[in-house]
Amino acid sequence: METIDRVAGMSRAAGIFRREGRTIGLVPTMGSLHAGHLELVRVARARADIVVVSVFVNPTQFAPGEDYETYPRDPERDAGLAAGAGADVFFLPSVAEMFPDGFGTWVDVDGITGVLEGKSRPGHFRGVATVVIKLFNIARPHFAVFGQKDAQQVAVIRRAAGELNTGVEIVVVPTVREPDGLALSSRNAYLDAGERRRATALRRSLDAARDLVASGERDPAKITGAMARVISGSGPAAIDYISLADPDTLEELTALRPGAVVLASLAVRIGRTRLIDNELLTVD
Amino acid sequence: METIDRVAGMSRAAGIFRREGRTIGLVPTMGSLHAGHLELVRVARARADIVVVSVFVNPTQFAPGEDYETYPRDPERDAGLAAGAGADVFFLPSVAEMFPDGFGTWVDVDGITGVLEGKSRPGHFRGVATVVIKLFNIARPHFAVFGQKDAQQVAVIRRAAGELNTGVEIVVVPTVREPDGLALSSRNAYLDAGERRRATALRRSLDAARDLVASGERDPAKITGAMARVISGSGPAAIDYISLADPDTLEELTALRPGAVVLASLAVRIGRTRLIDNELLTVD
Repeated sequence: METIDRVAGMSRAAGIFRREGRTIGLVPTMGSLHAGHLELVRVARARADIVVVSVFVNPTQFAPGEDYETYPRDPERDAGLAAGAGADVFFLPSVAEMFPDGFGTWVDVDGITGVLEGKSRPGHFRGVATVVIKLFNIARPHFAVFGQKDAQQVAVIRRAAGELNTGVEIVVVPTVREPDGLALSSRNAYLDAGERRRATALRRSLDAARDLVASGERDPAKITGAMARVISGSGPAAIDYISLADPDTLEELTALRPGAVVLASLAVRIGRTRLIDNELLTVD
Repeated sequence: METIDRVAGMSRAAGIFRREGRTIGLVPTMGSLHAGHLELVRVARARADIVVVSVFVNPTQFAPGEDYETYPRDPERDAGLAAGAGADVFFLPSVAEMFPDGFGTWVDVDGITGVLEGKSRPGHFRGVATVVIKLFNIARPHFAVFGQKDAQQVAVIRRAAGELNTGVEIVVVPTVREPDGLALSSRNAYLDAGERRRATALRRSLDAARDLVASGERDPAKITGAMARVISGSGPAAIDYISLADPDTLEELTALRPGAVVLASLAVRIGRTRLIDNELLTVD
């Protein structure tokens, strides 16, 4: 595995791979790699000649007051894990090169960025869309792999990549979970033992939603109400949102129509840690 | 010359050119080609293996009430002119494919888009930057050629292309003029005979600015004042702006420092036609 820490070096390497006719798969991450990221790398490995794993803690996607400074960083450990999962290139650009002082070109996606995560995290998806388009231009992937855990991110990136004609295929990988159902997240490291136990409520609330839909419930308010009861029954937790929405437009659903795929998602604060989870439910 | 009218077709062709190791030069236009555009094509021809001329009257860069509907369109004539100047590919995408209903991904450039042209034409540079990034992704050029006549467009595109890491070199070609100095523009066709005579005032006002700077004048207000007098002395005309600014940041200059390059620019309405012109002045 080759480590590249300069934008020009990555561009040059990508140009060579492209001229050689090799397929490039990109796995963009913020580092602090866990088994969820490594699953993304393995999916890329199975399809690409060259797997590029980027690690960049993107300051522009953290809202003011969020955990940009304290976000866990361990690039040496990440490099070892990425290599073990099959990465060929470990791309580690600097903030100074990616977002130099005076930087001012932004990719703004209308509509779907103002709801759910975007409502709680102003500017988050502008930062995400901008850094992803930059990484696409630098690493020139044929496809890029993202986790379903960040469902809204998937919707935003899919739309930006398509509407800007990047030609990059967006590959989405199911959420990887702990044995008790907690979705893997670098932020799980912030949880103490009691919070960690309560955190399983997110997964259990999604189970409740799935069971209700399977048993014929079609009223979104009843389903989100049941989800909220699972969360509040698990101990102290602040619900940021619980949503049943269209997976592409992210519009809240007022009814569940047969054949529809519904994005059930939620964000909950447990102690000082904000956790998200989601599941795609199919209505019979 | 090959004509391509589908985005997918252009992408496919660009991919083949790239794999063959051929250099692609793009000349993005809104059609209605004149000798200024053809000069851009010739500059591209001299440097590229494959010259792509795109013709797309971009609805998103016209402000409400502007001349989108009446903008001159004659793709058959344009194709003949492009071929004659050495184009290999004539790319003519549709509005339905480029900006389908519900389109919502925009490239926004901070700061430099709100002044000069951007002040009079809300949304103009958002539309310009978005379509240019789309065209770069579709046609995958190594370089793209623009005219100095649209100086602010050059600054915006240069910044967006660089900050989004497109890797596309921005090549700028000096303004082509009529024998009497009027900058070539598709909108010159809107002028009647009297307006056409008065329109030379733009070039003459820039001559006055250049002469004043050459003779040692260093007060921007005195220079823009002299430019305004040339315009108002030429007959009925409404000055939109007259500016001496930094060519990259587009900040208005309060003093002319030795060695500086200054963008002198102006926009003037003559009758119902809005004309622009500019010159880069070097301060001794």
